[in-house]
Amino acid sequence: MVTPFNRWRPVLFVVGLLLIVLSIAEIVPSAADAAVGNRDWIVFAASSGLTLLAGGLLTLVSYKRRQHLTISQGFLLTVVSWLMISLFAALPLRLSGLHLSWADAVFEAVSGLTTTGSTVLVGLDTMPPGLLLWRALLQWLGGIGIIAMAVLLLPFLRVGGMQLFRMESSDRSDKVMPRAASVIGAIALVYLGLTLACVLAYWLAGMTGFEAIIHAMTTLSTGGYSTSDGSLGHFHSVLIDWIAILFMILAALPFVLYVRMLGHRHVPVWSDIQVRFFLTTLAVAGGLITLWLWRSRHVPLAEALTDGVFSVVSVVTTTGYAVEDYGKWGAFAVVLFFLLMALGGCTGSTAGGLKAFRLQVAWIAIREHAMQIVQPHRVLVRNYGGRVLTDGVVASVMVLTLAFAVAVAVLAVSLALTGLDPVTSMTGALTAVANVGPGLGPVIGPAGNFSSLSDAAEWLMSAGMLFGRLEFVTILVVLTPGFWHE
Amino acid sequence: MVTPFNRWRPVLFVVGLLLIVLSIAEIVPSAADAAVGNRDWIVFAASSGLTLLAGGLLTLVSYKRRQHLTISQGFLLTVVSWLMISLFAALPLRLSGLHLSWADAVFEAVSGLTTTGSTVLVGLDTMPPGLLLWRALLQWLGGIGIIAMAVLLLPFLRVGGMQLFRMESSDRSDKVMPRAASVIGAIALVYLGLTLACVLAYWLAGMTGFEAIIHAMTTLSTGGYSTSDGSLGHFHSVLIDWIAILFMILAALPFVLYVRMLGHRHVPVWSDIQVRFFLTTLAVAGGLITLWLWRSRHVPLAEALTDGVFSVVSVVTTTGYAVEDYGKWGAFAVVLFFLLMALGGCTGSTAGGLKAFRLQVAWIAIREHAMQIVQPHRVLVRNYGGRVLTDGVVASVMVLTLAFAVAVAVLAVSLALTGLDPVTSMTGALTAVANVGPGLGPVIGPAGNFSSLSDAAEWLMSAGMLFGRLEFVTILVVLTPGFWHE
Repeated sequence: MVTPFNRWRPVLFVVGLLLIVLSIAEIVPSAADAAVGNRDWIVFAASSGLTLLAGGLLTLVSYKRRQHLTISQGFLLTVVSWLMISLFAALPLRLSGLHLSWADAVFEAVSGLTTTGSTVLVGLDTMPPGLLLWRALLQWLGGIGIIAMAVLLLPFLRVGGMQLFRMESSDRSDKVMPRAASVIGAIALVYLGLTLACVLAYWLAGMTGFEAIIHAMTTLSTGGYSTSDGSLGHFHSVLIDWIAILFMILAALPFVLYVRMLGHRHVPVWSDIQVRFFLTTLAVAGGLITLWLWRSRHVPLAEALTDGVFSVVSVVTTTGYAVEDYGKWGAFAVVLFFLLMALGGCTGSTAGGLKAFRLQVAWIAIREHAMQIVQPHRVLVRNYGGRVLTDGVVASVMVLTLAFAVAVAVLAVSLALTGLDPVTSMTGALTAVANVGPGLGPVIGPAGNFSSLSDAAEWLMSAGMLFGRLEFVTILVVLTPGFWHE
Repeated sequence: MVTPFNRWRPVLFVVGLLLIVLSIAEIVPSAADAAVGNRDWIVFAASSGLTLLAGGLLTLVSYKRRQHLTISQGFLLTVVSWLMISLFAALPLRLSGLHLSWADAVFEAVSGLTTTGSTVLVGLDTMPPGLLLWRALLQWLGGIGIIAMAVLLLPFLRVGGMQLFRMESSDRSDKVMPRAASVIGAIALVYLGLTLACVLAYWLAGMTGFEAIIHAMTTLSTGGYSTSDGSLGHFHSVLIDWIAILFMILAALPFVLYVRMLGHRHVPVWSDIQVRFFLTTLAVAGGLITLWLWRSRHVPLAEALTDGVFSVVSVVTTTGYAVEDYGKWGAFAVVLFFLLMALGGCTGSTAGGLKAFRLQVAWIAIREHAMQIVQPHRVLVRNYGGRVLTDGVVASVMVLTLAFAVAVAVLAVSLALTGLDPVTSMTGALTAVANVGPGLGPVIGPAGNFSSLSDAAEWLMSAGMLFGRLEFVTILVVLTPGFWHE
C-alpha cells in the first residue's frame, strides 16, 4: 500500500546514507583543527556527531530489504537530499569561530556543494585549516554527487534532454561498459585519481601540501574555492596557472569517457561530438581574448595568452578561479565573459551552466526548423553524435534552456529589489544559476566578494544556485500539482 | 519553367508596387518643405522621382496576369522588400541638408520603417518639417506593413508559431471575417481611423496641428519618433502623456480584433487570451514601478503613476517615447526595464519584441513538460485560447525565442567589439532586436541619442533591427542552403 511513509521510505533511506557520508567527511577538518590547536575542532566534531545521529536515525527507520526508486521518488530524492545536505553542511560554518549568520553559512555551504564557489568569507589567507578543508571537501563531495546524479538519475527522469545519455542507449555498442552502479564506482576512482594527480602537480609547481590538496579538490570539482582572497592569482605562477587550466578542462569533460578509456586501449576523445564543441569553444574564446588583450590592451603576448586562456577556461568550466580582474579588460571582454558565464562544460562532468550538448541540440533544432520550412515534405531525421534526436529530447532541451533564462531574469529582478546595483544583480543572478562563482563589477567581480550582500540577497542566491544545479526542471516537477496526487 | 527570372518575377512585382507607394509618400515632405521654403523639397522630389522610376521599371518588367506567391517566394519577398525599401527610404535622408553619412541615413530609415524609433539626429526641435514628416511617415507606413506581413504572410510561412493565427483556422467559427485581402483593407481603415482620433486628441490637448499629426503617426505605429529631442517629455503635459498611453496600448493590440468588433455589435476584447495577458503584464509592471517610485524614491503618487505607467507602456509596446530618464530610477527599475524591453506587444499589431503569445506558449510548454514527466502516459492536449497547440507550433515558438536570445547575444558582443561600453552594447543590442527605441545608460538611454555611435555600430544595429522585425526565422530560412536549391 502506498502510505505517505512508504512513498518517502527509500528517499529517506538514501538521504540518511548521504548524511552519514557527510558526517564521516567532517572528521577531516576536525582532525586538522585539533592538530593545529584551533577550538573549531569541537564544532566539527559536534556537527559530525549530530549529522551522524540524524543520518543514522533516518536509515534505521526507513531500512527495508530490496528497496527501489520509482521515477517520482527519484525527483523527491534529488530535491530533498540537496536541501538536507546543504543545511547540515552549513551547521559547522554557523557554529564556528567566524560568527556567521545562518544566511552566510547556508550560502557558503550551498555555494560549496553546488561547486559554484562564490564566497562570503574574507581573510582566507589567515583562516584555520579546518574551515578551509571543509569548504574544499564540500566542493569535492558535491562534484562527485553531481556526476552521480547526471549519470544515474537525470537520464531516467528525462530532465533537460538528459535521456540522450541513458546507459543502455549510449553504450549499447560498448561491451566494456558494466552496469550503472559499477560505472559510478569507476567514475569515483577516476575522480580520485585525477585529484591525486592534480595535488602532485600543484605541489611540484610550488604550492605547500595543504594548498595543493585544497586546490586540487576545488579544481576537479570545478568549484573554485581557494586558500587565499587572491584566489589562484595569489601564487603568481604561470606554471600553476597552466596546471589549473589543464585540470579544469579535464574536470569539465564527461567522466564516462574516462571510464571507457580505462577499458579500451585507445579512445579518441576528439570523436565525442560534445567534447569537440566544448574544446572548440574554449579555443575560439581563449584566442579572441588573447588577441584582444595583446592588440587592443597592449599586454605582452605570453601574459595575454596565460591570463586570457585561464580566465576563459575558469568561467566556461564554471570553476571561478581568478588570476586577473577581467572586469577591467574593456567592454568586449566584459560582454564576452557575461555570455560565456551561461555556457558551462559537458554533461556528466562537475561543471555547471547550460552545458555544451544543449547548445548543440538547440542549434540543430533551429537549423532543421529552418530547413523544414523550406521543404515541408522532407523526412526529418535529426541526430546528435549518432543518437536520434526525438522531438521529446528537443522539447526537453528547449524547456530547460527557457527555464534557465526565466530563472536568471526573475533572480536578477529580485536581487535588484534588495537594493543591489544593476550589474551586480544581473551578473549575480547569472553566476548563481550557472554555478560559476564570481560575477562582474566592483562588488562581486573576480576581485570582489559576496560578503557585503544582505541576508535577503544571500538567500535568493542560495536558491538560485540550487535551482541551477538541480537542472530547474527537477524542481519544477516537484512543484507541479500533479506530482503529489500521483 | 522555373527560370531564375520566373522565380523572382512575383517578388519583384510586389517590391516594385511598394516602391511606388513609397515614392508617392515622398510627395508629402516635399510639399511641406516647399511650403516653408526649405531647399530639401528638391531632395524629396528627386528621391520620389528616382524611387518611382525604380518601382515603375520593376513592376513593368515583372508584370504578368494572375501571379501568385509560393512559400519560398513569400520568404524572398519579405526579406527583399524590407531591404529595398530601407535603402530607398534612406535616400532623401542621405541627400538632405543634414549631411548624414550612408550609415546614419540607413540607420534612421531602418529605425523608422521597423518602428524602432532610435534616432541619430539631434536638434529635432529646429528641424525643417519635411524631414520630421518623412521620419514619421516611414514609421506609419512601416507599421501598417508590419501588420499586413503578420496577417497575410507570416502565418503561411509558419514562422515563430504564427501558424496559430492563420485566417482559416483562427476564424473558422467567425462568419463576419471576409477573405484575407479585404481584412487588410479593413485593418488599414482602422489604422487610419485610430490615427485620426489620436491626431484630434493630441491637438485638443494642446499640441500644434503639425506636432499632433507627427506624434499620432509615431504613436499608432509604436515607433516613437518625435518632433523634439525631449520626446514627449517636451510637452510637460499629463493629459498628453495619458493620451499617448491609451493609443500606445491600442496600437499594440491585435488589429484583427478591431475588424471583428466592426462586424459584431459586441466583442469582449478581454476574452482574447493574448490581450488579457498583455494588459495584465502592463498593469502589474506599471503598478510595481509606481509603487517603487512612490515608496522608495519618494515621488508624489500622482506623478509616480503617470511617469511609471507611461514608461512601462512605452517600453512594452516598443514605442520608445520618453518623459523621464528611467535609467535614473534605481537598480530595480533599471533591471525591470531591461527585461521588459524583450517582451513586446500582441502579434498582429505594430509592436515589436517577442510578443505576448510566444511567452504564453512557452509557459504552457514548460508547464505541460513538467506534468508529462510526472505522468508519462497521460494524453497531452495543449491548447491556446481554444486553438490546439501542436508540437510544430511549440517548436516554432521555442526556436524563435532562442534565435532572439542568440541574436541579442551576438549583436551585444559585436557592438562591444566596436568599442561601446558594456551597458550600451547590451541594451543597444536588445533595443534594436526588440525594436523598442532607447536603450539604457548615459549614451543611448531615454535621455540620450544614437548620434555618437560609430558607423560600424550603426550598420550592426540596422541589421539587428531588420533581423528582429522580420522575426529572425524569415532571414534564417533565406540563408538556409536548401532554400536556393529547391
